[in-house]
Amino acid sequence: MSNKSGGLRGVVVADTTTSLVDGENGRLIYAGYSIEDLAEHSTFEEVAYLLWHNRLPTAAELEALRSQIASAAAVPNTVLAMMEMLPKKSDPMAVLRTMVSALAHFDPDSENLTDKDVALKKAVKLTGQITTLCAAWDRIRKGQNPVPPRVDLNLSENFVYMLTGKSPDATAAHAIDTYMVLLAEHGMNASTFSSRVTTATGSDMHSAVVSAIGTLKGPSHGGANAEAMRMFLEIGSPDNVEPWFKREVKEHERRIMGIGHAIYKAYDPRAAILRTRAEALAKTTGNTAWFEIADKLANIARGDNFFIERKLYPNVDYYSAIVLYTLELDVDMFTPLFAMARIAGWTANIIEQMGGRLIRPDSNYVGPMSLKWVAADQR
Amino acid sequence: MSNKSGGLRGVVVADTTTSLVDGENGRLIYAGYSIEDLAEHSTFEEVAYLLWHNRLPTAAELEALRSQIASAAAVPNTVLAMMEMLPKKSDPMAVLRTMVSALAHFDPDSENLTDKDVALKKAVKLTGQITTLCAAWDRIRKGQNPVPPRVDLNLSENFVYMLTGKSPDATAAHAIDTYMVLLAEHGMNASTFSSRVTTATGSDMHSAVVSAIGTLKGPSHGGANAEAMRMFLEIGSPDNVEPWFKREVKEHERRIMGIGHAIYKAYDPRAAILRTRAEALAKTTGNTAWFEIADKLANIARGDNFFIERKLYPNVDYYSAIVLYTLELDVDMFTPLFAMARIAGWTANIIEQMGGRLIRPDSNYVGPMSLKWVAADQR
Repeated sequence: MSNKSGGLRGVVVADTTTSLVDGENGRLIYAGYSIEDLAEHSTFEEVAYLLWHNRLPTAAELEALRSQIASAAAVPNTVLAMMEMLPKKSDPMAVLRTMVSALAHFDPDSENLTDKDVALKKAVKLTGQITTLCAAWDRIRKGQNPVPPRVDLNLSENFVYMLTGKSPDATAAHAIDTYMVLLAEHGMNASTFSSRVTTATGSDMHSAVVSAIGTLKGPSHGGANAEAMRMFLEIGSPDNVEPWFKREVKEHERRIMGIGHAIYKAYDPRAAILRTRAEALAKTTGNTAWFEIADKLANIARGDNFFIERKLYPNVDYYSAIVLYTLELDVDMFTPLFAMARIAGWTANIIEQMGGRLIRPDSNYVGPMSLKWVAADQR
Repeated sequence: MSNKSGGLRGVVVADTTTSLVDGENGRLIYAGYSIEDLAEHSTFEEVAYLLWHNRLPTAAELEALRSQIASAAAVPNTVLAMMEMLPKKSDPMAVLRTMVSALAHFDPDSENLTDKDVALKKAVKLTGQITTLCAAWDRIRKGQNPVPPRVDLNLSENFVYMLTGKSPDATAAHAIDTYMVLLAEHGMNASTFSSRVTTATGSDMHSAVVSAIGTLKGPSHGGANAEAMRMFLEIGSPDNVEPWFKREVKEHERRIMGIGHAIYKAYDPRAAILRTRAEALAKTTGNTAWFEIADKLANIARGDNFFIERKLYPNVDYYSAIVLYTLELDVDMFTPLFAMARIAGWTANIIEQMGGRLIRPDSNYVGPMSLKWVAADQR
């Protein structure tokens, strides 16, 4: 069975109860609930509960989880001290990869490889700690002291609080929370798959999450939201959208970052929701240019045969870039925010994978055979 | 196409010129050369050159690579200082994962994602640095100062030198070198595959190697050599092999660690070579008990129908455990030594994968559908 140029597209590697990505119809379901309902009604904590337990929490269970995540979100001082030692220009995803790996050394459960209850405890802790690490790095690299998490906030509020050091702005925290609900889980995406490959050797949860972070970092995966924003910044103004499209896309055949998706051959349902939020945020803040650029470019692409024939629609990265930029987040923090959300899905998948069979595919050797070794002076 | 319980066994995910694992016939080929020839004649540096360039080096090229690896093997002081901050009881593979991730921040080329020549330069550097990190951790956790690498030694000699602080013993360095030649590369094994999944999103080499280390760490992959040794230690003496086999394997159905392999349905050719080396080392050192235990257990298993029918033979982990233990390495350092060797194969595969298609399989959703969200107080 060969899939060597196909990137395993369409090859089913596991049963799952976490989510269904219905690419043909543009639907996304988390454990039975549509992403539209969850984005409208749920907090990120509720979605994390749903992914880990496969049912929605009661009010008491939800508050318990919110409190557990907030209480576990503090990062050991030694880890923060190590973070201070990194060059300030380091890529934030590389920082997150190194620091999540460092957290393992200070978690007494890190080497428990088999107990799913312990794994869930680690998932709760990592979900809090990754947000703390993201906010801490943005402050440290700007020469500010990290702000520890508050136990009374939800995770999105805590992120805004730890980033700014001020009581979180409700609009910003709510927009971040919606983003985190939408990005929490997405079938067998590449980073989730890498966390399963690591888990399937019997390795530990921190190792699996570190693999996922390194995989998400790539520009063809989690790095795409930042790439989309860099493209919007290059376009610069709504007036330049049409000339830019003609020159860069039609003449130079450049790809539009954030349009097209490995699985969706219909409108990405997350993009539809984020488009609405981006529009509302643009109106609230008065900073409308970026939304206008994005929407104008999307409309031009929607009317172009190349995009119509290939079913290329805006994906989650496209409008999330606008939302996050309007919230004044640094562009290179977009991918860490993706990780802050996806940790819920990664850990749900890791727990599903625990105890499963080694994932060990094959390669097709196309090199020479039967060469005879000769001494170096005869080569 | 479903492979959900098969762990992708037999699914071809890439063309490669690095190696061929012929599981049916018990053959292993690196870029055209048999593992038997390479173990007999080549150094680890020669094998690394072969994997990276797909041909054997001239004498001058080999010496140049040896010198480059030795010169690049030093680790930045900040990284060593971070290592000193980790708890002394940390798992050495977790330490290696964190510290290789940390190295990225101090490599000016770490964020070059596309240039294969730059990638090769990083591969050379990481090959040296991983050995330095392994030796440094074993000293640091024992309260000793790390020893920097010498530019005049080959990598196996440098490992023994950095571990002991003394001029390397030739027998030990040669045994380590043979081990490293044998473990340098092995088709699409799980850690190599995980490095390719990470690379396929366009992510960087350090991220890919960190994924591979976390994946290798699992007891069903690189952790198996340490598990095999722990089993030999439990058996304790040659006299106890037969009662142990009867009780643990036949009555309690325990698996023999290091016997059986995901791919080999014949004798693992690396195990045959390492068996010879283990026997020679046992005679040289006079420490024969562990080789006797291993050989006796292997012979009993070879005569047992369960093992005969399933084609279960000793694999590379089985006799490598005896070699490394006879060299007085700590058992939990066996897997880091595996990483020291496999970095050559990982980086060769990463460079092959660069620019390839996103690896993004599918999952089979088996959870509920169309659930209606209700407020928390109605659940």
